[in-house]
Amino acid sequence: MAKIGVILSGCGVFDGTEIHEAILTMLALERSGADVFYYAPDAPQMHVVDHSTGTPSGEQRNILAESARISRGNIKPLSEADAQTLDAVIVPGGFGAAKNLCTFAVAGASMEVRLDVARLLESMFAQKKPLGFICIAPVIAAKLFSGAGVVVTVGAAGQPSEAIEAMGAVHIVKTAGEIHVDEANRIVSTPAYMVGQSMSEIAVGIDLLVAEVLKRA
Amino acid sequence: MAKIGVILSGCGVFDGTEIHEAILTMLALERSGADVFYYAPDAPQMHVVDHSTGTPSGEQRNILAESARISRGNIKPLSEADAQTLDAVIVPGGFGAAKNLCTFAVAGASMEVRLDVARLLESMFAQKKPLGFICIAPVIAAKLFSGAGVVVTVGAAGQPSEAIEAMGAVHIVKTAGEIHVDEANRIVSTPAYMVGQSMSEIAVGIDLLVAEVLKRA
Repeated sequence: MAKIGVILSGCGVFDGTEIHEAILTMLALERSGADVFYYAPDAPQMHVVDHSTGTPSGEQRNILAESARISRGNIKPLSEADAQTLDAVIVPGGFGAAKNLCTFAVAGASMEVRLDVARLLESMFAQKKPLGFICIAPVIAAKLFSGAGVVVTVGAAGQPSEAIEAMGAVHIVKTAGEIHVDEANRIVSTPAYMVGQSMSEIAVGIDLLVAEVLKRA
Repeated sequence: MAKIGVILSGCGVFDGTEIHEAILTMLALERSGADVFYYAPDAPQMHVVDHSTGTPSGEQRNILAESARISRGNIKPLSEADAQTLDAVIVPGGFGAAKNLCTFAVAGASMEVRLDVARLLESMFAQKKPLGFICIAPVIAAKLFSGAGVVVTVGAAGQPSEAIEAMGAVHIVKTAGEIHVDEANRIVSTPAYMVGQSMSEIAVGIDLLVAEVLKRA
């Protein structure tokens, strides 16, 4: 049974993990018989957004504690994740990926990746283990693996795809029902809600992504 | 296109809507072509639980604002829901259903149902429109419709099923992959995580529930 790590970044599209993307990923992994391990940084969120109004609320919340809502308490600090014992890692999207796992939301192509996130992903990559990035999360792959000529998709051309190219990676246009497989780097990406309009639409791309990641795990 | 209301009660199994149950419900509704409308009480949660530790955190959060995380901001105050325009209503589970929609978590069979919840469900019931209750949410149907001899399931026999019978309703034992259809009252229920051990398992019951509710909508 493949051991798959999933990195969460909070709970809610505007300040954390996009919930639909996370749940569809979990469902596809579970239905494929994978053994799933959830991780999140044990650190404060960049900020908290009232999702009924779209405005920052001024509250402070912890990324790990909020991510635990998605995984029903089954989660560990990302610092405890061990690339030796995992066969693959998948990063769902949502603004949390761009605000809490890296600084893309505020710094664009000048972004930095959290150390615990970079440590795990770079170690997996060095061991030639497959990685999956959903929605906006491929910017993290672009930042970490541009030196290897990584090719990813965040859907359509625009500010995120331009940032990906500015970081030295290659962007390829895809729909929410599609994935891109960078065979050389074993990195799979799908745009999900970057361009998708419905849950059933993004489910197609996420199911494909999970299948291709597991095939290489 | 059937117009289906979904009542949320926060975001997270221990103090709000059970996220997996809500997303599986939304996915099944969307795939069936339904037009879905999300509602939640615009009121404080009973309490907030740190889902990484399972302990109350002392924070205060609003049910509507947290529920909006599940529906990506697409939600209205429950007080604005109109039974005239909806064809059916579904209530996912999670402790939020037992803490924020009614007082079952603290009062058991002596529970009361929030007025905005009771108003919508009783109005739908009076118009002979179908209702779906998932996980622990059937206790609400038991409280409101015991006079009509309502029959529901929360899975196995235990404290919740005894409370349902104490409120004058009838409980029937089912697995997470099953539903019970109370034909006379057009009320469908499934136990989901009351007894289910995995997302793929509860998806079977939720898919069946959505199909039977839509069939009657």
